[in-house]
Amino acid sequence: MLSFNDYKNLVDERLLDFLPDTGNYANVLKESMEYSLGIGGKRLRPVLLLASCDAAGGDADRALPYACAVEYIHTYSLIHDDLPAMDDDDMRRGKPSNHKVYGEAMAILAGDGLLNSAAELITAQALDLREDADALYAHSRAAHEILRRSGASGMIAGQTADVMNEDKEASADLVRFIEEHKTADLITAPVRAGLMLAQADESMIDDFTTYAKNLGIAFQIADDILDYEGNEELMGKTLGKDLEQDKCNYVSVHGMQDAKAELHRLSSEAKDAIRKYDNSDFFIELADMLESRNN
Amino acid sequence: MLSFNDYKNLVDERLLDFLPDTGNYANVLKESMEYSLGIGGKRLRPVLLLASCDAAGGDADRALPYACAVEYIHTYSLIHDDLPAMDDDDMRRGKPSNHKVYGEAMAILAGDGLLNSAAELITAQALDLREDADALYAHSRAAHEILRRSGASGMIAGQTADVMNEDKEASADLVRFIEEHKTADLITAPVRAGLMLAQADESMIDDFTTYAKNLGIAFQIADDILDYEGNEELMGKTLGKDLEQDKCNYVSVHGMQDAKAELHRLSSEAKDAIRKYDNSDFFIELADMLESRNN
Repeated sequence: MLSFNDYKNLVDERLLDFLPDTGNYANVLKESMEYSLGIGGKRLRPVLLLASCDAAGGDADRALPYACAVEYIHTYSLIHDDLPAMDDDDMRRGKPSNHKVYGEAMAILAGDGLLNSAAELITAQALDLREDADALYAHSRAAHEILRRSGASGMIAGQTADVMNEDKEASADLVRFIEEHKTADLITAPVRAGLMLAQADESMIDDFTTYAKNLGIAFQIADDILDYEGNEELMGKTLGKDLEQDKCNYVSVHGMQDAKAELHRLSSEAKDAIRKYDNSDFFIELADMLESRNN
Repeated sequence: MLSFNDYKNLVDERLLDFLPDTGNYANVLKESMEYSLGIGGKRLRPVLLLASCDAAGGDADRALPYACAVEYIHTYSLIHDDLPAMDDDDMRRGKPSNHKVYGEAMAILAGDGLLNSAAELITAQALDLREDADALYAHSRAAHEILRRSGASGMIAGQTADVMNEDKEASADLVRFIEEHKTADLITAPVRAGLMLAQADESMIDDFTTYAKNLGIAFQIADDILDYEGNEELMGKTLGKDLEQDKCNYVSVHGMQDAKAELHRLSSEAKDAIRKYDNSDFFIELADMLESRNN
C-alpha cells in the first residue's frame, strides 16, 4: 500500500494521458476538458480505486485507467453543475469555472466529452484481455459498476433530486436520497471497482461497500457543515450557496449539532466494517481525515 | 433480414424498457429522458445496428440493447444541441424541445442521463457471458466501438467543430471534419458494432465501414440540402438555421449543384462497397431512400 499522496501523484501524472485525441478542428474541446481536470482536486475517488485494488492484491497499474475515468466523471459532473442553468457557480477550486473560461456551449460539450471519455477509456481496457477470460470478466464487471453508479439510478438521480427540489419542503428521506446518490454512489463505485479488478472475495467487496457508502454520506455531511462553517479561501468555491438557493441538506433539516453527531457515527461505522482486514490502516486514516476536513 | 419498419418496430417496442429506474425523488429525470426518446425519429442508427448484425448471421435479440443504446446517444446529443447555449432550437420532431418542456437544468441532466444510460446498458450485456469467452470479447469490442465514435474524438469533436466555428470562414476540410464526426461516426458505429456482435469477418467489417462512412456523410449533405430546400412541416424542425447562424456546411461551401452531385457520388460509393454480400439489398435500398429523403 502507498500513501494517499503517492496514489494521488500516480493519478495526477497520468490523468491527461488517457484523453482521446480530438483532432485539428476540435482542439478547444480537449483544452477545456484538460482545464477542468487540471485545476486540482483531492482526487479522492481515483485514490480510493487504486487503494482498494491494492488492498486486495490487485495490479494498481491496470487499475489506473479506471481511476482516471472516475475522476473524469466527477469532473464532468462539476462542470455541468456549475452552469448558469444549474448551480450557477463562477468559481471552482479557486479558479474560474469551465463556462466562465470557455463559454456555456463549450462547457456543456466538455462535460459530455469527459463522461464519454470515461466510458470509452474503461471499455478499452478489456480489449487486450482476450486470452484471459477471468480478467476480461473482472474488467467488464468493474466497467459496469462505475457506469451504473454514475448514472440515472445513481449520481445523476442524486443531482436531479438536488436541483429539482429547491424551494420545496425538505425531508430527511430526500436528504438521504441526495447524499446516497449525488455523493456516496461515486465514492462506492471506485472502491467496488478496484476490488473487482483485483478479483477480491465477495465478502470483502460487501464489507468495503459498507465502508464506502458510510464514508460517502459522511463526506457529503462534512461538505454541508463546511457550507455553513467553512473557509471560502480553503474551499476554493462560494460558500453559503445551499442557504441562498434554499437547498435541503443534512444541516438544514437536522441542525448543526445532529449533523456533527451523524458525521461521527457514519465515520465510525465505516471504519468498523473493514477493521479486520490487513490493509485497513489506509482506509481508517482516510475516514479520520475526512471527518476533520476543512476543504 | 426484416424490413426497415420491422427493425424500427423492434426498437420502438423496447426503447424505454432499458432505461434505469431513477428512484422516487428523481422521477422527472426518467420522464424527461422518456419524453425525448418518445417523440419519434427515424431510428436509422439502431435499425442499422440490428440489420448489420442480422446480415452477418448474428442474434438480433442480443443486439437490441446496443441498438437502443445508440439511439440514447443520438437523442442526448439532440437534447444538448437544442439548448439555448448551443443551437437554441425550440422545436424537435414537431414537438417542443426537451428544455422547453422540462427547463434547461433538467435538459442538461436528461442528456447526461441518456449518455450514461447508453454506456451502462452496453456494459451490462457482458455480465451474463462469463462462460463464453468469444462472445464476451465480441461484446466488449462492440461496446468500445460505440463509445469511441460517440466521444471526444468522434461525435463530440464534430459537434465542437460545428458550434465553435460559426462566423468563421468555412473551408472544405472543416466541412468534411464536421460531416465525418458529427454525423458519420454515429452511423458507422452501429454498423460496425452490429457486425462485431455477430463475430463477422474483418473483411466484411471493413467493407461495411466503407458503406457506413459514405452513407453517413451523404446523410449529412442531404440534411444540409434540406435545410435550404426542405419542408418545415415534414422535417418537424426550424429550417434555414445554418444560414441564419452562419454555419458552414457542404452547400454553403460548395454550392447546391455540387452538393447534389456529391450526395449521389457518396451514395453510389456506399452501395458499391457492399454489393457483393448476400444481404446487400437492405443496405442498397436504404442508401437509395436516404438519397431521396425529404425529412
